Amino acid sequence: MSDSVYKKIQVVGCSEKSYEDAIANAVKKSSETLHAIHWWEVVEMRGAVRDGKPVEYQVTVSLAFKVD
Amino acid sequence: MSDSVYKKIQVVGCSEKSYEDAIANAVKKSSETLHAIHWWEVVEMRGAVRDGKPVEYQVTVSLAFKVD
Amino acid sequence: MSDSVYKKIQVVGCSEKSYEDAIANAVKKSSETLHAIHWWEVVEMRGAVRDGKPVEYQVTVSLAFKVD
Amino acid sequence: MSDSVYKKIQVVGCSEKSYEDAIANAVKKSSETLHAIHWWEVVEMRGAVRDGKPVEYQVTVSLAFKVD
Amino acid sequence: MSDSVYKKIQVVGCSEKSYEDAIANAVKKSSETLHAIHWWEVVEMRGAVRDGKPVEYQVTVSLAFKVD
Amino acid sequence: MSDSVYKKIQVVGCSEKSYEDAIANAVKKSSETLHAIHWWEVVEMRGAVRDGKPVEYQVTVSLAFKVD
Amino acid sequence: MSDSVYKKIQVVGCSEKSYEDAIANAVKKSSETLHAIHWWEVVEMRGAVRDGKPVEYQVTVSLAFKVD
Amino acid sequence: MSDSVYKKIQVVGCSEKSYEDAIANAVKKSSETLHAIHWWEVVEMRGAVRDGKPVEYQVTVSLAFKVD
Amino acid sequence: MSDSVYKKIQVVGCSEKSYEDAIANAVKKSSETLHAIHWWEVVEMRGAVRDGKPVEYQVTVSLAFKVD
Amino acid sequence: MSDSVYKKIQVVGCSEKSYEDAIANAVKKSSETLHAIHWWEVVEMRGAVRDGKPVEYQVTVSLAFKVD
Amino acid sequence: MSDSVYKKIQVVGCSEKSYEDAIANAVKKSSETLHAIHWWEVVEMRGAVRDGKPVEYQVTVSLAFKVD
Amino acid sequence: MSDSVYKKIQVVGCSEKSYEDAIANAVKKSSETLHAIHWWEVVEMRGAVRDGKPVEYQVTVSLAFKVD
Repeated sequence: MSDSVYKKIQVVGCSEKSYEDAIANAVKKSSETLHAIHWWEVVEMRGAVRDGKPVEYQVTVSLAFKVD
Repeated sequence: MSDSVYKKIQVVGCSEKSYEDAIANAVKKSSETLHAIHWWEVVEMRGAVRDGKPVEYQVTVSLAFKVD
Repeated sequence: MSDSVYKKIQVVGCSEKSYEDAIANAVKKSSETLHAIHWWEVVEMRGAVRDGKPVEYQVTVSLAFKVD
Repeated sequence: MSDSVYKKIQVVGCSEKSYEDAIANAVKKSSETLHAIHWWEVVEMRGAVRDGKPVEYQVTVSLAFKVD
Repeated sequence: MSDSVYKKIQVVGCSEKSYEDAIANAVKKSSETLHAIHWWEVVEMRGAVRDGKPVEYQVTVSLAFKVD
Repeated sequence: MSDSVYKKIQVVGCSEKSYEDAIANAVKKSSETLHAIHWWEVVEMRGAVRDGKPVEYQVTVSLAFKVD
Repeated sequence: MSDSVYKKIQVVGCSEKSYEDAIANAVKKSSETLHAIHWWEVVEMRGAVRDGKPVEYQVTVSLAFKVD
Repeated sequence: MSDSVYKKIQVVGCSEKSYEDAIANAVKKSSETLHAIHWWEVVEMRGAVRDGKPVEYQVTVSLAFKVD
Repeated sequence: MSDSVYKKIQVVGCSEKSYEDAIANAVKKSSETLHAIHWWEVVEMRGAVRDGKPVEYQVTVSLAFKVD
Repeated sequence: MSDSVYKKIQVVGCSEKSYEDAIANAVKKSSETLHAIHWWEVVEMRGAVRDGKPVEYQVTVSLAFKVD
Repeated sequence: MSDSVYKKIQVVGCSEKSYEDAIANAVKKSSETLHAIHWWEVVEMRGAVRDGKPVEYQVTVSLAFKVD
Repeated sequence: MSDSVYKKIQVVGCSEKSYEDAIANAVKKSSETLHAIHWWEVVEMRGAVRDGKPVEYQVTVSLAFKVD
């Protein structure tokens, strides 16, 4: 890293399948405008229920990208 | 939500497959007696090991349902 | 448990597939030298990104094993 | 208190006016079925936005009532 | 545990003697209506003072019981 | 939400009147440049004192808005 | 601030009206003996209920004042 | 409480016997100079070991007393 | 301490009697292999229930010992 | 502050020398595009090791700047 | 320590040079009126920025001193 | 990292000079027996005072090393 500077942003990703897929959605969407995302940290995990079944996995991740 | 009131209960769900499946078990079981669960929040993730392998995923979720 | 003593160690497991697989890797590797791991607690969930996609799920677990 | 036992439940109250009003809503609704609520603890404060303005204050409180 | 579901409730127990006794009071009282309490987790420890001496130990525990 | 992505930013709002007003200030100012703020979460509450009286309520909120 | 030293004390303020009023009470009372309180930080928010209604807002604040 | 103001101070009590005794020591010593201590909150529990045995229980409590 | 280095390990001690006894068990067992344990910090307190009564106090402590 | 609005961003600064230097790097780099940074809060401190020696100090700071 | 009682106070120290110097300032200033400070615990680290450079390191420490 | 496993241990380092030096001491001492330490995370910062001056900086770090 030496003398590098990274910025962290918080993004909420959602998915009907799994938390891994929700993270992938958050990363993919953010990568459209940010080209140097290096890592994520899971901050919060939630989800939505309908008719007694989980219908959406929601994850808040902190995404870190390099500042040029 | 305006003027709605929700109650949150903590439930531990278990599964041999995944955390998503453990959450689904917690939601399904609780839905037998509660008809208006709206969302969950993950509170804790643990698991059991036998013979050097994960054999059970255990998740504590906070389930929120509407109070009529 | 009565009068038993357990030790907890923190281990970081990694996987290209899922957090469940990352936990399994941490448990399997630790079981090569520790024969009585009973349970784990998830402490932290992170991951690595390359080319706008998640490429590695990293999980820190606290593994508890019995002290004879 | 001596030898008394209290139970705590988590309730989310909402209001268009203020957090104090949201707490009052949570307390009033819960008092319809619980007759001995003694105190609350604020657990979380959130809210909803529409058209660039706060439209709802949401508060999660832990309500404590005496168990006979 | 496999596929079992547990519910956790928060209870405050009090005692003039000790925290262990306060926990026992919380467990005993709750067991009058709940028949399958398996474990507790200590959430908070407080107490009351009168005339410069501790007169009551108060403990908030999270009690977990099996949901049939 | 399904497959939606939200971004969260932290903003400090101030007011001479109340925390609700401080939140409204943070939301209004941020809405000048962000058109899809959905909710806020209170992160920290502080304030300034002058001549023995509160003169300013300061609140740090996390604002979530939809990423198109 | 440069080379200044501040001391922080924890004070609980109460009010029948609102949290803002409870903070004002804590600040006013403390200012009778402390002449240089600069800011507060909210540490905890609780309250008392009677007959199914909130009757008192209680707030623990950390008050910071300059040490000469 | 209505309009009362309480101050909280942090005190570390020690004892060779138990945590309850360590709390009693902290309360008794503080009551020599403070006449209106109402309650305590346990903040931290530690202890000292010598020759493989616990020789001292150390507890940090927050003591609340009324400000006249 | 000057230039000394200490290592901290997490150990779970159990007892049918009290938390102090559970800590003593954790310290005694660990002292069979570690000769320089100086202090402990309480990390978590739990317990097991059978037939509506506490049957085991479980405490996770962080034990610190000097590294030669 | 009165009616001012501040935004907080999280930045990771690195340095081979010290945490103070790592903070300075984060502040300097961020000041190239943000002209009104007022304060920082330390969120996390980590570092990298090579050949048994610390080679990089890494600090995550929350930087607050005024929104015009 | 056996049967000793310590009091902890929170103090904010500032310095233009480093966090170590800010701690020294807090300790020195507090030692003018307190003669038996034994240890400190770092509670919070912040700082002030002017013209894109750190100009002040601010640290909140909890100072523990013996009560006679 | 892919499929690598890391272990984390907690070590307390001390120094009369600075926290950076205390970390270096913890890392150096631990490297005598562990050959693959990759990174550290700061867990706690404390220190000792004598005659109104800081005489020792104490830091608890979590050291991560690769498990072969």
